[in-house]
Amino acid sequence: MVEQVIHYLKNNRNPLLERLNRFLSIPSVSTDSSHKNDVKNAARFVSEYVKEIGFTHVEEMETKGHPLVFAEYNEAGENAPTVLFYGHYDVQPVDPIDEWESDPFTPEVREGRLYARGASDDKGQVFMHLAVFEAYMKTVGKLPLNVKVCIEGEEEIGSENLYDVLREHQEKFAADFVVISDSGMVAKNQPTILYGLKGFTGIEVTVKGPDQDLHSGIYGGAVRNPVMALTHILASMKNQEEVITIDGFYDGVEPLSEEERKLISKVEGENYSATTGISETVSEKGYSAKEHTMARPTFEINGMYGGYQGEGTKTIIPASATAKITCRLVPGQDPNHIQQLLKQHIERVKPSGVEVDIKLEKLSSKAYMVEPNHPLIQKAALCYEKAFQKETVFVRMGGSIPVVEWLDKIYQTPIILLGFGTPEDRLHSPNESFPLDSFEKGMETLVYYWKEVGI
Amino acid sequence: MVEQVIHYLKNNRNPLLERLNRFLSIPSVSTDSSHKNDVKNAARFVSEYVKEIGFTHVEEMETKGHPLVFAEYNEAGENAPTVLFYGHYDVQPVDPIDEWESDPFTPEVREGRLYARGASDDKGQVFMHLAVFEAYMKTVGKLPLNVKVCIEGEEEIGSENLYDVLREHQEKFAADFVVISDSGMVAKNQPTILYGLKGFTGIEVTVKGPDQDLHSGIYGGAVRNPVMALTHILASMKNQEEVITIDGFYDGVEPLSEEERKLISKVEGENYSATTGISETVSEKGYSAKEHTMARPTFEINGMYGGYQGEGTKTIIPASATAKITCRLVPGQDPNHIQQLLKQHIERVKPSGVEVDIKLEKLSSKAYMVEPNHPLIQKAALCYEKAFQKETVFVRMGGSIPVVEWLDKIYQTPIILLGFGTPEDRLHSPNESFPLDSFEKGMETLVYYWKEVGI
Repeated sequence: MVEQVIHYLKNNRNPLLERLNRFLSIPSVSTDSSHKNDVKNAARFVSEYVKEIGFTHVEEMETKGHPLVFAEYNEAGENAPTVLFYGHYDVQPVDPIDEWESDPFTPEVREGRLYARGASDDKGQVFMHLAVFEAYMKTVGKLPLNVKVCIEGEEEIGSENLYDVLREHQEKFAADFVVISDSGMVAKNQPTILYGLKGFTGIEVTVKGPDQDLHSGIYGGAVRNPVMALTHILASMKNQEEVITIDGFYDGVEPLSEEERKLISKVEGENYSATTGISETVSEKGYSAKEHTMARPTFEINGMYGGYQGEGTKTIIPASATAKITCRLVPGQDPNHIQQLLKQHIERVKPSGVEVDIKLEKLSSKAYMVEPNHPLIQKAALCYEKAFQKETVFVRMGGSIPVVEWLDKIYQTPIILLGFGTPEDRLHSPNESFPLDSFEKGMETLVYYWKEVGI
Repeated sequence: MVEQVIHYLKNNRNPLLERLNRFLSIPSVSTDSSHKNDVKNAARFVSEYVKEIGFTHVEEMETKGHPLVFAEYNEAGENAPTVLFYGHYDVQPVDPIDEWESDPFTPEVREGRLYARGASDDKGQVFMHLAVFEAYMKTVGKLPLNVKVCIEGEEEIGSENLYDVLREHQEKFAADFVVISDSGMVAKNQPTILYGLKGFTGIEVTVKGPDQDLHSGIYGGAVRNPVMALTHILASMKNQEEVITIDGFYDGVEPLSEEERKLISKVEGENYSATTGISETVSEKGYSAKEHTMARPTFEINGMYGGYQGEGTKTIIPASATAKITCRLVPGQDPNHIQQLLKQHIERVKPSGVEVDIKLEKLSSKAYMVEPNHPLIQKAALCYEKAFQKETVFVRMGGSIPVVEWLDKIYQTPIILLGFGTPEDRLHSPNESFPLDSFEKGMETLVYYWKEVGI
């Protein structure tokens, strides 16, 4: 039975890729309000596709922000389990646009990779699932299990409205387990199961000085420079040994066990100099880069600006300076508490003569960990191995998927994270791409998995 | 004789202001190459005006950058002294443009002030001189002394080509003394003579990390964040007591004498909270704000940027971060040596895992001090007092005029700094303006001064 499904996917490679390209061509940048309509069009693309596949109860559910596509397939019968498949059709902004080798919304294949914003995160991976459902329906005529589909349009802006929708429609989204494909493999074609995800929180700080930019020759020596003040604040939050120096930040964080250090050491590390161009890795004192990225909390300045940025010199004391900060958290850290610690730290170290204005990131999430020995996970590992012909590794990763925390909190059902991305995909960066062979082997994995966990 | 000249200026107030408005309407932003033609038009405005007044040998001298207007008036005779009048017709950029209450290049009078970019710095003050020359010619029929005019278009970009022009045409610009009006009074209508100016130097530092922006969830913990690295570098250069913490920075700087501290304490300080909106002043440990702005070196970050600046959150480790830094120097400091100290400091404290790229500001200048008891200065003080009906104060100021250092170096003649700006003028900031009564009293001062020093 699975052979004919796989056969269908191979035979229909071109029309499937053409459809995927149409999906990727929609600039559904959720953070940018000027793309509101494009986000809507991407939702429409998903709802029309699942309707065509044969899902019933297809809905574009309105939220306070962008719509969420819900769909149901019930015909596997009462004895079959029900899976909730979650993904997102929104994408990150594309700037700096100059660095893209081809237009981010005009998909292009180069050397076996499909280049487009969202090719990997997460339109490409959502599409793999939809294509597999199509293949089952067109060949076997039915799916091996009942499926609920939940594809949202706000993942890249912290899934702002998803939690409310899930709470309000708790029954509607209820399932025996959840599958999410919004993560990656540790190396191309290295089957990887995530058993831990980091939590997330953030803060934006603006240091305000004079009510206008001032002439540095006239006012230098009398007025606190807001950019300088902000560098003092930020430099006090993480030291050069990459240790976060905010009182209480590590409270509740368990030290990494020897067992887990061993598990992490088995994972083939990314070749960072090849993928990112850096000359050397840096990580928290006492931890390797693999350990820090997978299992230790992080603190990053995502953006900072103040004063003159143009050509040449402008001799001013800037009126203000702003930094955008986000943290990735591990089990034992409460995101709201961490936000308060950041805020208190900033207010405590703020130099005199300037004011600080602090905005708290609205949606934060706790870290999540799942039992690697659960049968649904072990079955996934086997299906991966069958498709990719390689032993599956189990890892924790630094990315944050708020929905995982919420689904866990609401339903307490297993959440299976089947990622197919590769380290070379350049998520959130210029020239995002996805390898076509991973796309095919990933679909094969899913074909096996639905058969394995279905009836 | 002077009465009729002053009378002319009063009678012709409106046509003179209309002509000044035409001058201010030309967006001669020298740092921005897209304004190259506007800068040329401002030079043309000056050359046409001095020709009309009756100057001979009017020239728009080409340079590698923007042209310099030279003109000569010789008819005062061999017994009369020759003054070189220096000014600049270029202006600072206007951003942030949103904060201007009226268009920066559409002059507008509100509550006795003329609002426009350049109204004070330096088009307005240049125009006062030209109008006084016009008034002398139209009434007395001649000027009381020989005059050479040198109005350049690159002051706001460090007078990039002026030094070469002065060196190449040393004889042409030679004069018995120099007069410059490109500074301000310590308070509106408080006659002020500058006896010291600070020197200037600068550096731009870019910290380079990965070759692209990276996903903070995947790479956080392995990759040095360039923005964080830059904050560590910058925070190490000046402490929160406003002491510059760069090895050797203060070498050669004389401590402020008790005599000079007394002189400075007599000057009425600016009401900073009224003019800039700050809650309190900050200054170098051991020095008042007046002492620091006038007589101690400064270090300012004029602009800084790295990573995401848009709406919402973007979870990246930025590829790079840049800071623009300038310093104001006092006697005893060599600008090129200071630049090297900054560079060496940055290279020494640079964290691992990132590279730094350093650009040195091309044109720097040494600080300048002049003898306050020189007769040409004492005469200026008296003329000020006659026009403004208030005792003249003598101050040092934090602004830098590279031309002062060069003229001193080349000619060793007295340089008289007659400033008419006011602390409320918002130089280099949105809503630059100049009070019309200072404009009138300033012209009166000049009428007296030329008579006093001429024949």
